[in-house]
Amino acid sequence: MKIAIVGASGAVGQELLNVLGTRGLHIDELRLFGSARSAGRVYRFANNDIIVKELTHNADDFADIDFAFVSAGAATSREYADTITARGAIMIDNSSAFRLCDDVPLVVPEVNGPDALNAPRRIIANPNCTTIQMVVALKPIHDISPVTRVHVATYQAASGAGAAAMQELIDQHADIAAGKEPTVQRFAHQLAFNVIPHIDVFADDDYTREELKMLHETRKIMHSPDIAVSATCVRVPVMRAHSEAIWAETERAISPDEARTAFAAAPGVELIDDPAANKYPMPLDLAGCDPVYVGRIRPDLANDRGITFWTVSDQIRKGAALNAVQIAEYIIAHRS
Amino acid sequence: MKIAIVGASGAVGQELLNVLGTRGLHIDELRLFGSARSAGRVYRFANNDIIVKELTHNADDFADIDFAFVSAGAATSREYADTITARGAIMIDNSSAFRLCDDVPLVVPEVNGPDALNAPRRIIANPNCTTIQMVVALKPIHDISPVTRVHVATYQAASGAGAAAMQELIDQHADIAAGKEPTVQRFAHQLAFNVIPHIDVFADDDYTREELKMLHETRKIMHSPDIAVSATCVRVPVMRAHSEAIWAETERAISPDEARTAFAAAPGVELIDDPAANKYPMPLDLAGCDPVYVGRIRPDLANDRGITFWTVSDQIRKGAALNAVQIAEYIIAHRS
Repeated sequence: MKIAIVGASGAVGQELLNVLGTRGLHIDELRLFGSARSAGRVYRFANNDIIVKELTHNADDFADIDFAFVSAGAATSREYADTITARGAIMIDNSSAFRLCDDVPLVVPEVNGPDALNAPRRIIANPNCTTIQMVVALKPIHDISPVTRVHVATYQAASGAGAAAMQELIDQHADIAAGKEPTVQRFAHQLAFNVIPHIDVFADDDYTREELKMLHETRKIMHSPDIAVSATCVRVPVMRAHSEAIWAETERAISPDEARTAFAAAPGVELIDDPAANKYPMPLDLAGCDPVYVGRIRPDLANDRGITFWTVSDQIRKGAALNAVQIAEYIIAHRS
Repeated sequence: MKIAIVGASGAVGQELLNVLGTRGLHIDELRLFGSARSAGRVYRFANNDIIVKELTHNADDFADIDFAFVSAGAATSREYADTITARGAIMIDNSSAFRLCDDVPLVVPEVNGPDALNAPRRIIANPNCTTIQMVVALKPIHDISPVTRVHVATYQAASGAGAAAMQELIDQHADIAAGKEPTVQRFAHQLAFNVIPHIDVFADDDYTREELKMLHETRKIMHSPDIAVSATCVRVPVMRAHSEAIWAETERAISPDEARTAFAAAPGVELIDDPAANKYPMPLDLAGCDPVYVGRIRPDLANDRGITFWTVSDQIRKGAALNAVQIAEYIIAHRS
């Protein structure tokens, strides 16, 4: 198996190196690509030093590559997709560039794995982190009775804005502790000791694009064009792992116990739901972990056909790198 | 006007001193009470040094007092209510002790001020901070068309757990910046770089009491026994000022513009809703301010009769001390 990573120096690129090193994929060759600024950096993988090469329009760079994991922003994905896929590589794209294109599958293996097997442009899109986490948790509910609408409030970690943003949050806290004025560059406002109800740019109906992704991507992944999702996406001063408070309405009422049983059996989900012992998922505990954790399961007191729960998942791992690798694994396991 | 504060050394007691110093109440005498531990402390008010006296069952301590602001926990309120009110004082209680008693009004002046004029036990309850903030924002919507149900996710500051909890959050960040293990005492888990979906104790249906307060107190304050509220209450690493993501369903659909106009005209509400300029309410900016700030107003994409918005308000100020003082002001202005 020959693998390429585009955007190797970023937070997701680095996590791809971690994930690829611990999963079952047999990797014969790994090629790393990045911007001119990143080119020349060296990363260790499977006892080899690999030098990051500058991404150019030379399609030969991707000759013989089976899977190219691309995580360098939507503009880069759009500009280089033809180059990356020209020689037969399947591009698994972490950006929003192609997610809603009809001829590009948008895949979370636990939810719609088979969609990955039909990728006419050899591009498969990895959904937005907040959506991945939500649909993995919604799927076992949806399988009992179709989900009709969702309200969701997110508590998103600094990691979603990249490695430099995580460092900025640490630096802000260090500056404040030292009595200095914190620097604000990566977010619209100071994040330390604050929450910011604004992720990505504002779009239709005064929703942010991040919030609208949770509507449109969920519909596509779940093959449910009528599912209604209203999201409020909020950045919180947490390093890694996003949290979400979710209310889901189903066609018929589902009890918390029914939901708990379904969550416990669902692939990719782990239950932490023992309020009596003060146990519920929290981002500080779960950074670097693979599953989507679910807890605080209870009836929706404002909807007879509703259920509410709380999820936490590592944004860089299941929300990005791990899901991308799982897409490749799914294709390898299922292609004829 | 003679005023007493019980719990003068706490976060709310201290804010009561601030608020009383800046409002129009003419105060002839101010008496401060506290636990044995706080007794003897001296606080400055209107150019006088006032010594905190230990709270006992001596009703003479409250002779001639017009209003006693009590903020020392539910157990203290229950134990000392008779003593405090025996000589005619009106007790404005910040605890949860009496909030749902039929013979105790639960008052947010902007919403149900007249209820304060009928207090047969001379006890008036100040609602929970998260509820105050929410009902001030719901009222102008409710006045256009009755609110039928609410989903709300909170982002609650450390201040809600008192002054020592605020210090613990600062100390945790200082310890982490210095490479030391942070101390956890005031919350169930480390709050720095974390969010904790657990405030107050767990109760019916695996909801916390904090979450159920938002249901039951809202029904009582809004005189709407059928309004349905499902809340998820979450502690975030913010010092002061709570934030809430609210979805409200009304009997007839209300447009965002209609809501915006109503918010702009509503007492106690201030609009900050200019996404194009990155302007929306944030807790870091609004600590120490009086209003309930509202922004991110938009249609609920999961409910044709729904609207969604974001509120921020200082938990110690409008969420506690200010609302209590406003109750006294309302009574003074309206009693015959």
